[in-house]
Amino acid sequence: MINEVYKNMLRGKSVIRELSEYATERGKEIGYENVFDYSLGNPSVPCAPDYTEEIIRMHREDSPMDIHGYSPSLGITAVRQAVAESLNRRFGMDYETKHIFMTSGAAGALSHAFRCVTKPGDEILTFAPFFPEYTPYVNLTGAVLKVVPADTENFQINFPAFEEMLTDKVMAVLVNTPNNPSGAAYNTRTIQRLAEILYAKQKEYGHDIFLISDEPYREIVFQGADAPYVSKFYDNSISCYSFSKSLSLPGERIGYVAVNPRATDADVLAVMCGQISRGIGHNCPSSSVQLAVAKVLDQTSDLWVYETNMNLLYEALSRMGFQVVKPGGTFYMFPKALEEDANAFCMKAKEYDLILVPSDNFGVPGYFRMAYCIDTEKVRRSIPVLERFAREVYGK
Amino acid sequence: MINEVYKNMLRGKSVIRELSEYATERGKEIGYENVFDYSLGNPSVPCAPDYTEEIIRMHREDSPMDIHGYSPSLGITAVRQAVAESLNRRFGMDYETKHIFMTSGAAGALSHAFRCVTKPGDEILTFAPFFPEYTPYVNLTGAVLKVVPADTENFQINFPAFEEMLTDKVMAVLVNTPNNPSGAAYNTRTIQRLAEILYAKQKEYGHDIFLISDEPYREIVFQGADAPYVSKFYDNSISCYSFSKSLSLPGERIGYVAVNPRATDADVLAVMCGQISRGIGHNCPSSSVQLAVAKVLDQTSDLWVYETNMNLLYEALSRMGFQVVKPGGTFYMFPKALEEDANAFCMKAKEYDLILVPSDNFGVPGYFRMAYCIDTEKVRRSIPVLERFAREVYGK
Repeated sequence: MINEVYKNMLRGKSVIRELSEYATERGKEIGYENVFDYSLGNPSVPCAPDYTEEIIRMHREDSPMDIHGYSPSLGITAVRQAVAESLNRRFGMDYETKHIFMTSGAAGALSHAFRCVTKPGDEILTFAPFFPEYTPYVNLTGAVLKVVPADTENFQINFPAFEEMLTDKVMAVLVNTPNNPSGAAYNTRTIQRLAEILYAKQKEYGHDIFLISDEPYREIVFQGADAPYVSKFYDNSISCYSFSKSLSLPGERIGYVAVNPRATDADVLAVMCGQISRGIGHNCPSSSVQLAVAKVLDQTSDLWVYETNMNLLYEALSRMGFQVVKPGGTFYMFPKALEEDANAFCMKAKEYDLILVPSDNFGVPGYFRMAYCIDTEKVRRSIPVLERFAREVYGK
Repeated sequence: MINEVYKNMLRGKSVIRELSEYATERGKEIGYENVFDYSLGNPSVPCAPDYTEEIIRMHREDSPMDIHGYSPSLGITAVRQAVAESLNRRFGMDYETKHIFMTSGAAGALSHAFRCVTKPGDEILTFAPFFPEYTPYVNLTGAVLKVVPADTENFQINFPAFEEMLTDKVMAVLVNTPNNPSGAAYNTRTIQRLAEILYAKQKEYGHDIFLISDEPYREIVFQGADAPYVSKFYDNSISCYSFSKSLSLPGERIGYVAVNPRATDADVLAVMCGQISRGIGHNCPSSSVQLAVAKVLDQTSDLWVYETNMNLLYEALSRMGFQVVKPGGTFYMFPKALEEDANAFCMKAKEYDLILVPSDNFGVPGYFRMAYCIDTEKVRRSIPVLERFAREVYGK
């Protein structure tokens, strides 16, 4: 008999994907260059050339048995060691090989981390606005995702709401900084305060509360932003990383879990990930991709285009009178819509071939997300269209 | 709090892995060439050269955005279409793109298939001897794996035992042909009879019973073996494939689910896999690996070495008086041990640097598995050692 739980999931449609498909179809009518498609968070810059060189070199020179052999279930040992050393060098941590578990991107990392530190029925708190895929990730573990209302002033953390929701049932807190969709990076003060509260509540409740940090945008931080490494501030922390955005390799499904060496049971958490992996049929990312990524751990793609685009849009939107928090990183921006109903706002924008994603799915009504991982030239051309739209429809 | 379910899994050790690690250590003492390591099912032949060529070509010539972009959640459409066409061409099926879901090898395929057609508490039947990893794969879905005792005569199916265990609670039957560890391939008569029984029981119980076919060894079939395509015989069938063995790409984690177009809900099962995938953080195999594999779907590595090794060992073991069923495929053989306790037998063999895996974990006591995916030269050198062992210890 078909499993009804998964069958029912088919009804849930992704607004982002629908808008992206609309943009593609519309592009066929008027030319895609005329569709200002801000829907999808797909990197717009090529991967780091050294990655490509390494893949070609290893396929040419190395033994196929070595590059395509079974990876141990926690990942290739030398790769895990290289990841630990890179993190230690860059963030002053003291990870060892045993703290690193290689995953299929951040999605894989998160779903293993959730299963490690929660059991069905436990609560996981996250903060609006948030990446909507967190909901299925958490639901299928049996834990319950609860969303703390947004700090719409700065898209840092709404601490009064957080403290109220941080009950005895909460076993993990999930943060995403720099944030999809707001682009905000949590500053030192925010993370320090978060850690203080978690330490106090661990003591009060007498159980661990893990801080799970989703960090695919960690390397996309703009000038002047204060965006420290989360695990520096809290012992019971697990970093979930993906190379999708930093190296522009989203399709290669490569990332890792890094367990804070000072976390409870730090020595077994990665091994547990291996056991979870057996059960859910994940069994490591591609061995050749692991090996190639290990050669470019301290590199990124040319990410400056995202900052150029952000500055152009931030300046233009502010000038037009939009309320918008200046992003500290990512390739997203999250301005307030010009009417209460973000869906209505985005529908009207669509008439101008401006493809904007309404905010409701991100857990905050009345905003919209722009994914500005597109050509700068198109960003420039979109600004007069945004202006015309705001003027004609909203008298701005 | 650490999840105790996964923490407890850490206690379960893999006998195969322990033996393999012992063999590596022993190799450091006496030279690995002197350890007759029949423990691990790791392909011993390089991947198909056209795969390597295609990886190099695409990384040199194609746009990085195209080859490393996000794969749709069911896999790259052109790849799924190519898989369907290849299966139709080779096995006379009528798969369409919508029936194919790209996975991280057979492990990924199985864990999605189980979740599609069972719910927690349902029973899944499989047949001894069986691949021990089926236990964690099934356990983590919440379903219950029950093992039908072996037909030790031929390692086909013990039908009387099967019919007795095929109760109303069974929602899926899992077969693996050619089989790990026995090497036996189910013949036409076996699969026909299996299908007849399943059709009758579906009718009697008034619910679907899915046949899930684990097929990583499908292309490793020896001369004269009758090893038909399972899904030809039964409508409610799901093929779970891996390129690990046929193309010698175990580390690349690439395979697929192929849903029989005549199955109940055939049109939604692959889409459900996509939803399951969201929840367990799998999210597609590597995009570049998908694209490269699509170019070599009808190829295999040079697999003849496995048949050469099988013939050498089968002839030698038979001559020595071992009871052994001649394999129809794979790179495994499953002879009867020379004493009742297979563990004791394998411990004694270890003294001769013969690394054999005792059968208990495969669900049959008193046998041992030999994975003869090793150099033929080593197989030849191992035969006098096997003879000496059988003579000195068991007077054979």
